[in-house]
Amino acid sequence: MLPKNTANNIPQNIINKLKESKNIIILPHVSVDGDALGSSLALALALKKAGKNVRVYFEEEIPQVFTFLPGKEFILKYSNFNEDSSKMSKAETVVALDTGDLERLGNRVEIFNNSENKINIDHHPTNTYFAEINYVNPKAAATCEIVYELIKAIDIELDNDIALCLYTGILTDTGGFKFGNTTSITHLIVSELLNYQLDIPTISYRIFDAVSKEKLKLIGKAINTIELHEDGKLALATVTKKMLEETGALDEDTEGIINYVRNINGVEIAALFKEKEDLEIKVSLRSKSYADVAEIALKHNGGGHKNAAGCTINAPLGEAKKIIFDDLIKAINTHKS
Amino acid sequence: MLPKNTANNIPQNIINKLKESKNIIILPHVSVDGDALGSSLALALALKKAGKNVRVYFEEEIPQVFTFLPGKEFILKYSNFNEDSSKMSKAETVVALDTGDLERLGNRVEIFNNSENKINIDHHPTNTYFAEINYVNPKAAATCEIVYELIKAIDIELDNDIALCLYTGILTDTGGFKFGNTTSITHLIVSELLNYQLDIPTISYRIFDAVSKEKLKLIGKAINTIELHEDGKLALATVTKKMLEETGALDEDTEGIINYVRNINGVEIAALFKEKEDLEIKVSLRSKSYADVAEIALKHNGGGHKNAAGCTINAPLGEAKKIIFDDLIKAINTHKS
Repeated sequence: MLPKNTANNIPQNIINKLKESKNIIILPHVSVDGDALGSSLALALALKKAGKNVRVYFEEEIPQVFTFLPGKEFILKYSNFNEDSSKMSKAETVVALDTGDLERLGNRVEIFNNSENKINIDHHPTNTYFAEINYVNPKAAATCEIVYELIKAIDIELDNDIALCLYTGILTDTGGFKFGNTTSITHLIVSELLNYQLDIPTISYRIFDAVSKEKLKLIGKAINTIELHEDGKLALATVTKKMLEETGALDEDTEGIINYVRNINGVEIAALFKEKEDLEIKVSLRSKSYADVAEIALKHNGGGHKNAAGCTINAPLGEAKKIIFDDLIKAINTHKS
Repeated sequence: MLPKNTANNIPQNIINKLKESKNIIILPHVSVDGDALGSSLALALALKKAGKNVRVYFEEEIPQVFTFLPGKEFILKYSNFNEDSSKMSKAETVVALDTGDLERLGNRVEIFNNSENKINIDHHPTNTYFAEINYVNPKAAATCEIVYELIKAIDIELDNDIALCLYTGILTDTGGFKFGNTTSITHLIVSELLNYQLDIPTISYRIFDAVSKEKLKLIGKAINTIELHEDGKLALATVTKKMLEETGALDEDTEGIINYVRNINGVEIAALFKEKEDLEIKVSLRSKSYADVAEIALKHNGGGHKNAAGCTINAPLGEAKKIIFDDLIKAINTHKS
């Protein structure tokens, strides 16, 4: 079933260019995530079925968590235009996917600029419309939603592999269908994807639940550091260099720990102090509703959004906490109407 | 949009009985969960819109996590048939929802037996067809899916409140759309529910992410007890009475801790040892793929399924681990084809 309310939104010139081209290059953004990767591989798999030569160029290795995705045969790591052995660094048509601006193409902007037809398909509201042909739909929860539409519009049949790529992208960009960007259309598209063979529990485990023993131990230690202030409205937690050493966890394993702190009932502001160096403390800030943590971060030369921000304080750990503490208390007690 | 593949499955006599009845009682199962509660309140809200007198009888208080649901005006706590002040303990029609057998109605089986028309609507494959009119659909991920169909079939329009109840039930019974019971139809129904005003991130936070500081501290302590054996394929964790005392966590707060242990990369069997009393150790067992933990539990007078089981060992904590340890190792090393 083709969801009626999503069909026919794709500009006809995108459909035509892709149908006319024999050689097509797809470019996801740098620091590739589930949606950029899923949409790129889904489109590559679909265009291959339509008889095209397709390549997907990455700036870096595929993140370990996504190595289960199909379509590896299309993937090339791009470092230098002239070193490319695939003879595909130039193509009639290049499609940038999930990429808000040209900078997000990194070195691969060379490929983009050297192609005859330049297409930009994205869902970021900040997209700069940097191509000749642009299709930006900020209402789409994921670029995978748009690529789903596009594959339908070119009249290529979905299959298990394409469905897996699209599902993964939608899953990651909606946080498992629980972010506010999730729409009726999101679920309508996923409803069709589930007509293909997808091992839902395994995909979900790999993307959201799987954890290394080192990271889990770090989480345990970080939880043990939690201090509550202001009747439980302010929660502070700490990750020291020593904790990383003791657990064997990586620096990237600190990601997500702030959420455990934020999720405590009654907490309005959560702050995580990560000791990067002896005099370099990275502070991650989250608020649940009214408190503006961007304001606090900004005051300490950081930035972010109202409910998620961060800054770096150059001081020893204990000192860093003292430096920002009063601002946290003030934000807790400032109810803006 | 009415999903075509879900419509018209509801037996006509259920539709007729509900349309003909003025007074209707709804009974979810004891130890009410999100699906039993959501389906009951959704149906109550819908039938009220159709001009019916509706009551939902519970055996116990509504769990704290679900107090945000609408429809509280229909809810009565039932303890004794004769004490009921609502004069509704008898009705022309009673509907048991999400209830596999009569025992799951607890004391309220009195109400069920005393009503003229008895309807049983459920999705559990083990349902005993205990009513005059039964509609059991084991393909439905949640009873809320069936109640969605039913409300459509009676021709009552959904609204924000009904959508919230149905969404909550589907969300909980599918573990946030990530259990294997999630189907194409599940997402199709949710797609329509999202046309109403649902605060998806807040619902999701309340149901899955919100945690008391006491529980989080207990999780931290439990993580610190994790021991890995057999090249990381076996993970053991412990919750002692002392840990509950130190954190102020409740016995029910141990729920879900086993998942942290199971989620470690490479772990096949996770075992959580909970000290209930000095000589009473509750053992929760989970396996990820091939290992049969039900077999182990059975040997120690417990039970369960292949991937989730449990037993109680009457011995001191250290002793209990030793008693079951060899069986765990054996299961790890038994690859059944």
